[in-house]
Amino acid sequence: MGFINLDHISFNPLLPEVKEVMIEVINSDFQNPSSQHTPGEEAALKLEAAREKVARLINADNPKEIVFTSGGTESVNHAVKGVAMANHEKGKHIVTTNIEHNAVIRSLKRLASQGFTVTSLSVDKSGRVDPKDVKNAIKDETILVSVMHSNNETGTIQPIAEIGEIAREKKVIFHTDAVDSVGVVPIDVATLNADLVSFASNPFYGPTGVGGLYIRRGTRVFPLLEGGVQENNKRAGTENLTGIVGMGKAAELALRDMTDRIRHLEDLKGYLVRELPGYIDEYIINTNLEHSLPNLLNISLKYIEGESVMLMLDEEKVAVSTKSACATGSLRASHVLLSLGLSHADAQGTLVLSWGMDNTKEDIDKFLAFLRTVVNTLRDMSPLYPPT
Amino acid sequence: MGFINLDHISFNPLLPEVKEVMIEVINSDFQNPSSQHTPGEEAALKLEAAREKVARLINADNPKEIVFTSGGTESVNHAVKGVAMANHEKGKHIVTTNIEHNAVIRSLKRLASQGFTVTSLSVDKSGRVDPKDVKNAIKDETILVSVMHSNNETGTIQPIAEIGEIAREKKVIFHTDAVDSVGVVPIDVATLNADLVSFASNPFYGPTGVGGLYIRRGTRVFPLLEGGVQENNKRAGTENLTGIVGMGKAAELALRDMTDRIRHLEDLKGYLVRELPGYIDEYIINTNLEHSLPNLLNISLKYIEGESVMLMLDEEKVAVSTKSACATGSLRASHVLLSLGLSHADAQGTLVLSWGMDNTKEDIDKFLAFLRTVVNTLRDMSPLYPPT
Repeated sequence: MGFINLDHISFNPLLPEVKEVMIEVINSDFQNPSSQHTPGEEAALKLEAAREKVARLINADNPKEIVFTSGGTESVNHAVKGVAMANHEKGKHIVTTNIEHNAVIRSLKRLASQGFTVTSLSVDKSGRVDPKDVKNAIKDETILVSVMHSNNETGTIQPIAEIGEIAREKKVIFHTDAVDSVGVVPIDVATLNADLVSFASNPFYGPTGVGGLYIRRGTRVFPLLEGGVQENNKRAGTENLTGIVGMGKAAELALRDMTDRIRHLEDLKGYLVRELPGYIDEYIINTNLEHSLPNLLNISLKYIEGESVMLMLDEEKVAVSTKSACATGSLRASHVLLSLGLSHADAQGTLVLSWGMDNTKEDIDKFLAFLRTVVNTLRDMSPLYPPT
Repeated sequence: MGFINLDHISFNPLLPEVKEVMIEVINSDFQNPSSQHTPGEEAALKLEAAREKVARLINADNPKEIVFTSGGTESVNHAVKGVAMANHEKGKHIVTTNIEHNAVIRSLKRLASQGFTVTSLSVDKSGRVDPKDVKNAIKDETILVSVMHSNNETGTIQPIAEIGEIAREKKVIFHTDAVDSVGVVPIDVATLNADLVSFASNPFYGPTGVGGLYIRRGTRVFPLLEGGVQENNKRAGTENLTGIVGMGKAAELALRDMTDRIRHLEDLKGYLVRELPGYIDEYIINTNLEHSLPNLLNISLKYIEGESVMLMLDEEKVAVSTKSACATGSLRASHVLLSLGLSHADAQGTLVLSWGMDNTKEDIDKFLAFLRTVVNTLRDMSPLYPPT
């Protein structure tokens, strides 16, 4: 309803073509792809066509390496816990970073309570992990390295191909949580040297509640959801065919349009970064501008609360976020920003701005004008401002 | 396309009202229910309205006791593995039956590999477990009793309320896999004495890929999918709002129409059972006609293969099943039927017939006429027939 959506990281609107194929499935009285009669086989064809489209998006050798899941969170839990369960006799040590999504962090906490040990690496001030640190952290008993491709709060992209190469040399399984990267920037599982890649459909304008896990052939990982023999016996449960077909269409369009999309998104990013200082002062850019997603900028506004900014912008019909939507309800400062070396106070002043194909420079202009007013109002009320 | 669908257990067509609300969500550019801005809050209202409808369907005290999942399989994995993880310090013994769905069986196999022990109870020839056997199997170290409400192959319903009462007396957590019962027959979590109830949306004409887990307040169970704080911190991951809204509508209609539906489905069941002997001979009814779902009949046709019957009926545009769609691809005889005491040969001759609100007596007549021809043709070719 007339909202300027600068919170695409929480939700991307479905593309018209995606809506169309989903509605087609809903109206088609499709059946269970596991059924062996003709209507079942027709559903299975739809399922496999979607799998091929998703495989192409990330350049998987074989569509069978794609497992459809209920979203990025399930993919991550499947990868991390599945590797741990399948390889614990080899060792119980896992290497990760301090800035992972809670799906990785909480999965690893669960494993830690079951006797696994975790080395969590720091990132530098620019938000990147040093591949050498990964190399040094790997021990004989290391069974998994899990490093996210891009961070969901800052958009900063990690040197995944180098980390993957190190893991491969050391013969350790490598998982990358690429939920906010797949379909947004080019992801090629071959050049990334990744054995497991978690991703979701919504970041590339497909439906929520559906995602995928790339499992390189030969990777030892147990299923998380067990029961029937769906998904080549790697993930049980009757498939969300409506969502999967939508994801397939979204993958096809993401691959086709990626260059154009990146150009548009980068344009807006450059514009926002250039224009910002004309509207506000005393802010920190937490995004690594050299290595980051084209559709996200994380800034901390000094002396005020990001939460208040968000609520006041909401009244002006501008949607922004202060952190990951998954962390809503938690009052703690972002672990990602604290890892970058931000103070608690600065971390509390954070806005996560993320845009999409439906945004324009005029949206940025309107946002910036509102932001100036909001920031001035809040700073006028802030006991911390002006700093003494 | 003109198929007579007697395979409703694999897939129920969505109700028009369910399609309508799902399409509405798809077209509405809804947002992420976890986002704190206005568009996010609007999505959260839709989510909670669906939760209330589902809570009413099973008479849960509080909608917060309902966790939305990606389907029955996830619900079962969550319940079984989640109880084991959360209570292993109390004990590592679990009681179940020989006829559970593979989601339970395979979850328990995984736990057995992690040091849990499982007592799996036999059923009698009618397919039911004796509550006394459950009582006798419970030990001091028992942390979970898991018994399905209705069997997905035979439709036979277990004495769940009695079993639940025993578990409660013994202070053991009780889970029932009610995937094929919830929304089909009255399920009241209060009278069932169940702490955990797994269910799915499609059995009551909602979408596939979405289900629920009832977790009675105070029940100690860990999440299976960890990450964000969605679903009251019990199940992480951005919600499949399209599916959940569809499930909510389906739950509302199931509750409203259940008596009429049961009457129609029971009518067809009685008709089928009465008419069968006029068309074929030498068959076994594996369903407990006294205690079973109104929409399913399991029969074994002697001297022939159910698979061949299914394929020949498919040519006549009649969809039936030979076993759980989840077990497609497995050539083994059904563990459920072997548990009833059937021979391997008889188990191989099995048809699972399941109907829905869209079926009529004319469908049954047509099916029976085709069945007679198919059975005669196959028996004429069978080296086992006539028996010597």
